Amino acid sequence: MSHLQKVQNWLAENQLDVAYISDWKSIQYFTGFGSDPIERTLALFIFKDKDPFIFAPALEVEAVKKAGWNYPVYGYLDHEDPYALIKDHITQLGVDPQKWALEKNNLSVERYEALRKFFPNATFTGNVSPLIEQERLFKTEEELALLREAGKWADVAFEAGFKALSTKVTEQDVAAEIEYEMKKNGILHMSFDTIVQSGSNAADPHGAPKADLIQANKLCLFDLGVEYQGYMSDASRTVAFGEVDAKTKEIYDVCLEAQLATQDAAKPGIRAAELDKIARDIITKAGYGKYFIHRLGHGIGQSDHEFPSIMEGNELILQPGMCFSIEPGIYIPGVAGVRIEDCVYLTENGNQSFTHTPKELRTLPLD
Amino acid sequence: MSHLQKVQNWLAENQLDVAYISDWKSIQYFTGFGSDPIERTLALFIFKDKDPFIFAPALEVEAVKKAGWNYPVYGYLDHEDPYALIKDHITQLGVDPQKWALEKNNLSVERYEALRKFFPNATFTGNVSPLIEQERLFKTEEELALLREAGKWADVAFEAGFKALSTKVTEQDVAAEIEYEMKKNGILHMSFDTIVQSGSNAADPHGAPKADLIQANKLCLFDLGVEYQGYMSDASRTVAFGEVDAKTKEIYDVCLEAQLATQDAAKPGIRAAELDKIARDIITKAGYGKYFIHRLGHGIGQSDHEFPSIMEGNELILQPGMCFSIEPGIYIPGVAGVRIEDCVYLTENGNQSFTHTPKELRTLPLD
Repeated sequence: MSHLQKVQNWLAENQLDVAYISDWKSIQYFTGFGSDPIERTLALFIFKDKDPFIFAPALEVEAVKKAGWNYPVYGYLDHEDPYALIKDHITQLGVDPQKWALEKNNLSVERYEALRKFFPNATFTGNVSPLIEQERLFKTEEELALLREAGKWADVAFEAGFKALSTKVTEQDVAAEIEYEMKKNGILHMSFDTIVQSGSNAADPHGAPKADLIQANKLCLFDLGVEYQGYMSDASRTVAFGEVDAKTKEIYDVCLEAQLATQDAAKPGIRAAELDKIARDIITKAGYGKYFIHRLGHGIGQSDHEFPSIMEGNELILQPGMCFSIEPGIYIPGVAGVRIEDCVYLTENGNQSFTHTPKELRTLPLD
Repeated sequence: MSHLQKVQNWLAENQLDVAYISDWKSIQYFTGFGSDPIERTLALFIFKDKDPFIFAPALEVEAVKKAGWNYPVYGYLDHEDPYALIKDHITQLGVDPQKWALEKNNLSVERYEALRKFFPNATFTGNVSPLIEQERLFKTEEELALLREAGKWADVAFEAGFKALSTKVTEQDVAAEIEYEMKKNGILHMSFDTIVQSGSNAADPHGAPKADLIQANKLCLFDLGVEYQGYMSDASRTVAFGEVDAKTKEIYDVCLEAQLATQDAAKPGIRAAELDKIARDIITKAGYGKYFIHRLGHGIGQSDHEFPSIMEGNELILQPGMCFSIEPGIYIPGVAGVRIEDCVYLTENGNQSFTHTPKELRTLPLD
């Protein structure tokens, strides 16, 4: 059954007339057309028993057709009122939908109110977000192929970063080398701005690379990923640049043990919270619990942060086809930071990783 | 008067109790703390007659304080319910706000409904988005300084791009060189993925660079910008790589005339739509009207697409301190594309550009 048909069935089961899909990544999921409209309106209307249509900025109409969309696509110009036109197009279909479902985790209150103005007698109680999240949780073979390809490029990026390490260059230089290598190879976007952090800079888990020189005999943390045909990779490695001290090695080993044990346990049937707890217990037992200050992982696919969230409190039972990161971290302010991350997908019996750069502590020679 | 005080005054004037600011760029505008929380909740609550507070992911609490925020900041962990905690914090302030203003162009329906659950007796008729948009329209001297700096880097980026042109490299290679040059210089983000389009590829105004070689004796279009301390640049130049034919030169000249005439007319007192019309009339008179398929420009500041929109139908009177792009384009499918763009800010008598790379047709020698 196609993704569109699933929404149509859901509408019928819930006695709803139409679903208004507003998140451009959801629209990409349903239609193959992926483009961020920024502040403009891009919308997909899925009816219970009529053909769907896309409503898009006029600039994008040709691209929608080229992406293989065989149903109608209607354009609008910047000075036109999108909701007045949407009302017209729906009226011309000969329908008068009363019961609407919205993508409530995306649609803004302002657009919701604009819609209500043109459909004053309709109700908007339906929320199609959970259905889409549920559908997007399970990756198809086609999606997995793209995620694997994105993962391969992340492995290439790590090697470029390791090669660039030198006490003569800054964290920013190393990040620049990595992204340059990717872009020269036709990668159009990184999943996010590449993170390179040397020594104690890595203790900030959200930090950007700085203009600080790479430090000798310290750990260096890399967190990176690329977008490949709309699908993301995301992986972290921490390497030793020169010889690191015994205490640093200990922190690394604890983090690695947590990562490996968790990835080993990542199988259908386990709950997200349990997986988080496996990593957290190992790190806590070693005395570093208070330095593991984020959840174990997040889903990955068209976004680098989607469902399932692998964290305390999430009792979701993990199932085959789900894709997520396993990324324990230990961040000791002023001292060091370690994070080791692979994104995996669950198979029938276990999991497979999208990235394959070795995780044992790698020591790179000083220049 | 501070930005915060303006919101407090607006609340008082409109008999509202509290404004819930949800867009992270608005929060940056009010607080100096700028970080995209992705799917997490980041919120600023501004009360009519109490101190404001920030509610943020626990990971970000230290960064909020470091950014200079002197009012309370409350963190939450991933497994906690943010709206239950927000309710608690507000209750502890000893207030029970009844009349709310939301940032309606940002807040999702889902979060709006979560909020309503915890404040069942409140009304949510206020919309603080227009006030914020209005405030953000007028840039302060401090903001202009950052925009000028972002513009300088765009000029550096153009030179890097021009230098990289060669028939032996692809559009993607040239874009990679530009971004590499920026990142080596400590620029952490581009405003958007750099566009480099050679020959007829430039006829797609939203296109990404391709794996196609740069073509000799054709135009090459560059559209790029950088983020500098939270503020964006955005500029386009089209250059001749080798000698282009007379027809191509004519298209360039028409676009340049439209750009220069419009920028010359960009003064306080003119309406946005009038400015668009000046460029459109010149291009239409020359016979290329149907190939100018987008608005003349967009606002710029913390985002590369904000208000004011310079387009047909926008009767906004432009005033000193407003910043926007002037970017006429002519796109002839299968033939060529030209776009020439500067972002400017309006002074008391005219405007000043953030970018200064010459706009007369520049011919770069073939390699």
